[in-house]
Amino acid sequence: MQDKPCVLLLNKALAVLRTDLEKSYRVAAAYDYASLDLLLDDFGNDIRVLITFGGYPPAPALLDRLPDIGLIAVPGAGFDGMDPADLQARGIALTSGAGSNAEDVADFAVGLMIAAARGICESERMVRGGLWTELVPSSMPRSIRDRPVGIVGLGAIGAAIAKRLQAFGCPISWWGPREKPDAPFRRAPDLLSLASESEILIVAAPLTAATRKLIGTELIDALGPDGLLINIARGDLVDEDAVIAALRAGRLGGAALDVQAEEPTPIGKWADVPNLILTPHIGANATASVRTATEMLMENLRRFFAGEPLLSPVRPSA
Amino acid sequence: MQDKPCVLLLNKALAVLRTDLEKSYRVAAAYDYASLDLLLDDFGNDIRVLITFGGYPPAPALLDRLPDIGLIAVPGAGFDGMDPADLQARGIALTSGAGSNAEDVADFAVGLMIAAARGICESERMVRGGLWTELVPSSMPRSIRDRPVGIVGLGAIGAAIAKRLQAFGCPISWWGPREKPDAPFRRAPDLLSLASESEILIVAAPLTAATRKLIGTELIDALGPDGLLINIARGDLVDEDAVIAALRAGRLGGAALDVQAEEPTPIGKWADVPNLILTPHIGANATASVRTATEMLMENLRRFFAGEPLLSPVRPSA
Repeated sequence: MQDKPCVLLLNKALAVLRTDLEKSYRVAAAYDYASLDLLLDDFGNDIRVLITFGGYPPAPALLDRLPDIGLIAVPGAGFDGMDPADLQARGIALTSGAGSNAEDVADFAVGLMIAAARGICESERMVRGGLWTELVPSSMPRSIRDRPVGIVGLGAIGAAIAKRLQAFGCPISWWGPREKPDAPFRRAPDLLSLASESEILIVAAPLTAATRKLIGTELIDALGPDGLLINIARGDLVDEDAVIAALRAGRLGGAALDVQAEEPTPIGKWADVPNLILTPHIGANATASVRTATEMLMENLRRFFAGEPLLSPVRPSA
Repeated sequence: MQDKPCVLLLNKALAVLRTDLEKSYRVAAAYDYASLDLLLDDFGNDIRVLITFGGYPPAPALLDRLPDIGLIAVPGAGFDGMDPADLQARGIALTSGAGSNAEDVADFAVGLMIAAARGICESERMVRGGLWTELVPSSMPRSIRDRPVGIVGLGAIGAAIAKRLQAFGCPISWWGPREKPDAPFRRAPDLLSLASESEILIVAAPLTAATRKLIGTELIDALGPDGLLINIARGDLVDEDAVIAALRAGRLGGAALDVQAEEPTPIGKWADVPNLILTPHIGANATASVRTATEMLMENLRRFFAGEPLLSPVRPSA
C-alpha cells in the first residue's frame, strides 16, 4: 500500500473516480472524514495530487498543509476559483478536462434553448396539470431559424453549440475577447452589440475575475423583451438578481439556466419568476463526457508521476 | 358581398385565417353556429371550399349537403381522415400545406428528443420542487452522439430532423415504404430492424390506414429498455396502451409524445407513467410554419377560383 502515491479527492461527487484511482493510487477521500484535520493527520505529508471540481478550490490554508503536493487536477472544463499563476508560485501544476465535455454540454444547451424557445417544459407542465392548450396565436413563438443567436465565448463548448445551430438555420454571431480568424461565424464588435443583435444569447464563457456578472442589467435590456438568455457555463457569469427583475418586469423574454451562482440554488428566490427554466447543472452529465474527463484526468496523473509533460495543463495567461 | 365566393371554416382553431380570407371570400364559420344545420341554411348552396385540419375530416353527410364544393384545403402537412380518391370521386380536389411546417416541427422534435434524453423536463420539475439533484452515476444518461437514431418516415419533416441530427454526430437510419436513392442516410431493411438497431426512434410518418398503430408492442420491445420513442406526427401512429404498459414495466426507456390519439388526451390514462413527456401538439406552433401554411392555403384557393393548377394538391396514390 505505502508504495502507491497518494491522491486527495476533495468532493463527494468525485467518488465515481475512486475505483479507477485505487488501481494505481492510495486515495484520501475528504468525504470519508468528519474534518479535513483528521484526514491530514492520516495523509497530509503523503498527498501529491489534489482532485476537485471547478468552483470548489482548495483553501490556501489547506494547500499550506500539503508539503508534497505538485498537481491539482480538475475533471471538467472549468477551473474557476483556482489561479494557475498563484498555484505555479507554490510549485503546483493545474490540469483540466478542457474539451472533454464540449459535445454533451452543447447538446444540452441546444435542448435547453429549444425547450425554452418552443415552450416544451411549460406546455408539458400544463398537460400534466390537465390543461391541454390549443394553438393561441398571441403566444405563437417565433421560429428558431428567424432568431439571431449570439454565443458568448467560442471555446470548445461555444463552437460545438454553433456547429449544431448551423443545422437549424438561425443566424449565428459570437463574441469573445480574442479573435478567432478560423471561426466560420461573425464576431460581434463587443458583447453589448452581440446582445443587441441577438434574440437568443447563449453563455459559454469561462468564469474568471473578468467575467464575473458579465451578464448584467445593461446586457439584459439589450437582449430585450423578445430575448432569451441561456446559461450552461457558470452561474456567477450572470447577475441573477438582474435576471429575476427583468423576467418579472417583462424586460427579458425568458431564461434557461443550467447553472446558478449558488448550487443548489435557494429555490425561494426564483419562486413565481415567469418564463424561466432551471436545471441542476447537468449539462455535462452524460456518459461520454464522464468517460473522457476520467481518461484525461488519469492520464494527467500518470504523466505527473512519470515526470512526463502533462496532457492538458492550464498555464498562467501571459 | 354576394359576388365573393364562399368558403367554410370547419374548426375554431382556424379562426386565425379569417381576416385574410375575408379580404377575398365570404366566410362561413362553423364555430359561429350552434349547429351545422343552421350554417347550411345560410350558406349550404354557396360553399365552394371547405377548410379543415388533418384529423378533422368533414362527415360524408356534410359533403352530401354541399352541392357546389370543389376543394378541401388543409393548412398543415397531414390530411388524415380524408381520402383523395374518395374526394376525387365526388369531384372534390384536396390540397395540403405539405412542407410548410417541416423546419419548425423538426426543431421541436430535436428539442423534445434532447429534453427526454437528457432529463431536462424531469430535472426542471425537481428543481422547482426544491430538489436540486447532484450527479448520480447510476442515472447517467448516454451521450446523444453514441445513440443510434431511427427515423420513421423520411418526408420533409423526417429529412429536416435528420439534417439537424447530423450536427449532433449520432448515427442516423430511417425506414419508409419507398426507397429514396438521394437520401444520404441508411434505409433499414424494415421497420422492426430499424427499431432493433436504434436507441431513439422518431416517428415522422403520415397517418393512413396502413400506418395506424404502426408502433405497437413488438416494435416497442425491439426498441427496448434503453430506448426512447419520440412522436411528433400523429397520435394514432402509436398504440398508446402498449407504450403505457411498456413504460410502466421498464420495457421501454422513455417516450416523448407531442401528439396523442385523442386530443386533448384524457390525462388520467397517463397518470404516474414514468419517463414520459407529453406536449399538446405544438410541433408546428411557430410563426414561420403558420405564415407559410397560410400563404400556401391562400394561393391554393386563389388558383382554384382562377381555374389554374393547384399549388400543392394531394393526389390519390396510384
